[in-house]
Amino acid sequence: MSKRSLLLLPGDGIGPEVMRQVRRVIDWYARKRGIEFAVEEGLVGGCSYDAHGTPLTDETMARALAVDAVLLAAVGGPKWDNLGFDKRPEAGLLRLRKEMQLFANLRPAKVFDALVDASTLKPDVVRGLDIMIVRELTGGVYFGEPRGITDLPNGERRGVNTQVYDTHEIHRVARVAFELARKRGNKVCSSEKGNVMESGLLWRQEVIALHKAEYQDVELSHMLADAAAMQLVRNPKQFDVIVTDNLFGDILSDEASMLTGSIGMLPSASLGATDANGKRKALYEPVHGSAPDIAGRDLANPIAMFLSFAMALRWSFDLQAEADILENAVENVLNTGLRTGDIMQPGMARVSTSVMADSILREM
Amino acid sequence: MSKRSLLLLPGDGIGPEVMRQVRRVIDWYARKRGIEFAVEEGLVGGCSYDAHGTPLTDETMARALAVDAVLLAAVGGPKWDNLGFDKRPEAGLLRLRKEMQLFANLRPAKVFDALVDASTLKPDVVRGLDIMIVRELTGGVYFGEPRGITDLPNGERRGVNTQVYDTHEIHRVARVAFELARKRGNKVCSSEKGNVMESGLLWRQEVIALHKAEYQDVELSHMLADAAAMQLVRNPKQFDVIVTDNLFGDILSDEASMLTGSIGMLPSASLGATDANGKRKALYEPVHGSAPDIAGRDLANPIAMFLSFAMALRWSFDLQAEADILENAVENVLNTGLRTGDIMQPGMARVSTSVMADSILREM
Ligand SMILES: CC(C)[C@H](C(=O)O)[C@@H](O)C(=O)O
Ligand SMILES: CC(C)[C@H](C(=O)O)[C@@H](O)C(=O)O
Repeated sequence: MSKRSLLLLPGDGIGPEVMRQVRRVIDWYARKRGIEFAVEEGLVGGCSYDAHGTPLTDETMARALAVDAVLLAAVGGPKWDNLGFDKRPEAGLLRLRKEMQLFANLRPAKVFDALVDASTLKPDVVRGLDIMIVRELTGGVYFGEPRGITDLPNGERRGVNTQVYDTHEIHRVARVAFELARKRGNKVCSSEKGNVMESGLLWRQEVIALHKAEYQDVELSHMLADAAAMQLVRNPKQFDVIVTDNLFGDILSDEASMLTGSIGMLPSASLGATDANGKRKALYEPVHGSAPDIAGRDLANPIAMFLSFAMALRWSFDLQAEADILENAVENVLNTGLRTGDIMQPGMARVSTSVMADSILREM
Repeated sequence: MSKRSLLLLPGDGIGPEVMRQVRRVIDWYARKRGIEFAVEEGLVGGCSYDAHGTPLTDETMARALAVDAVLLAAVGGPKWDNLGFDKRPEAGLLRLRKEMQLFANLRPAKVFDALVDASTLKPDVVRGLDIMIVRELTGGVYFGEPRGITDLPNGERRGVNTQVYDTHEIHRVARVAFELARKRGNKVCSSEKGNVMESGLLWRQEVIALHKAEYQDVELSHMLADAAAMQLVRNPKQFDVIVTDNLFGDILSDEASMLTGSIGMLPSASLGATDANGKRKALYEPVHGSAPDIAGRDLANPIAMFLSFAMALRWSFDLQAEADILENAVENVLNTGLRTGDIMQPGMARVSTSVMADSILREM
């Protein structure tokens, strides 16, 4: 097998320091397990804008398309808040998603036993929580045309965006959700606003059609997005896999991640279609943001980035047992009571980014 | 002063039984306080469809436009789930909102001291919570054109909706939020997805412009809708007034209402513009739905409907002290330990819809 290739995009804020730690994990796999990765690094987000005047250069885009998997840490920060739409750090991320055709965003919201008390929800409500949100990532209102801000004859301005979904866009992401459910609790809940939006009604109808044709063994339910936002607070453990569109997925997955009380722990995977060689484009990133307020101070939690790499081991390289090693090490270190600031609790030991990483590496 | 006029729309499910109780409250004000209302009743939602083949007749629409205030209980139910878009119960509600031009939807999320433990969130996180969400209600993706489902040449289907906002639509609802904030905690948080949607960027810019021109004394902040969904779970008490668009308002207000643990308690007001005579169209309704599963069994919580009427006393009739009487009676009865099923807790006394109403009336 030719060498496995990775593109690391540290990005902005705490991105570089958590990416530095993941490099040590990558090295560990080469040294201890003989699993070698060809690693390149590139710029995305505000740092790329500062260096090149664009949040993602064509050259970095091309490299992202060429490698087996991309690891991204985080983009954005107040420094770039007032740039135009196509210059913003987010635009780099959106371009990666679109050109790599990463239509399925997998966002687990999982509560670690050691961290049950970190949640603002009562322990009984969240203990054992393990939801997988499958968010459509290359369509909907994020990319629909027409869009923009225009001047009206009456002196006002008008802002427009378009939500649009075609049958195949719905089917391919729903397929990911059904396949995932089969390996988990075998339940899919599809969420939209089909009571007020035709695009949501189509979403529902197409999910039902696909289910009927190919996935009748999986239990399918439907929930309006507003009701889902409620039920995530009221009784989150009712969910196994949730599949939803780009915008609702953005909101519901962030809400779900916060139920865990520890978004510094949560990874995500963004996957494209499987090609003729059985390969699929993929990008892995933490759910947390770039946290500019604590950047450069060795305070960030590296675990979400580590678990994102574990997802890469699973999804891009089919190294299940290797992923287990990393995930178990994380769990064990948490059980010893080490905590970064974001998940700190009374009676635990507060440690820095690098000490947390040291401990996990030692545990591996 | 000519008699105050009310149109009652009991709607579907538990609607009629909670509306029956509110009628008793209305009578109480006439008998005990000499405040008389001319009360009419009409059909909306599934019951109107069953009777007339449409979820809202032109005649009922005309009456809604003629009265001082409309009280609506709830619409919808599985019986009507498979009707076309314009026949669904929701379509009746959307028509009322649109034709009455009820652009500002006020949704308080308030935690009653007696019910702190009903929340799935930890008591410290929600005790004293008092958020007012101001949701834009007549624009955005709910009403934007083009919309619909079309057949594509390749055999697929396409679902389209359009999010559109003009300057004046943003200003008028933001104005309501700023005015409300002045009477409360003096803070407004405006929420959108201006990082990926131009309509959201315009929203933000126009809120900033209005704030600068007229409301500099109010503290204004901005939060992306995904971040707001997170912060509502993490630290909801940071918020005073939240102003947001129709779709985000739908989701965030439902999420916020569930933080209270008792959505059977929450009222809402939908307000139009003030006309030359100082009058504004208004519709008041509980946040809860039609709960078809418990309909007709004297189990529903009538309090959200009562508090919706209290909002009507305040907003449509400027009867502040009278509204206090009703709101205080509700609070006192809760403090005695009476609970309907939805807010039942160990050690409390479980009562029916009518017994709860009896007790509140006695307390008044
Ligand atoms: C950074 C931003 C463009 C992005 C989104 O809205 O998709 C983020 O919130 C996310 O969820 O990955
Ligand atoms: C019933 C439905 C059309 C409505 C909405 O989506 O606005 C409801 O969810 C609400 O929030 O009042």
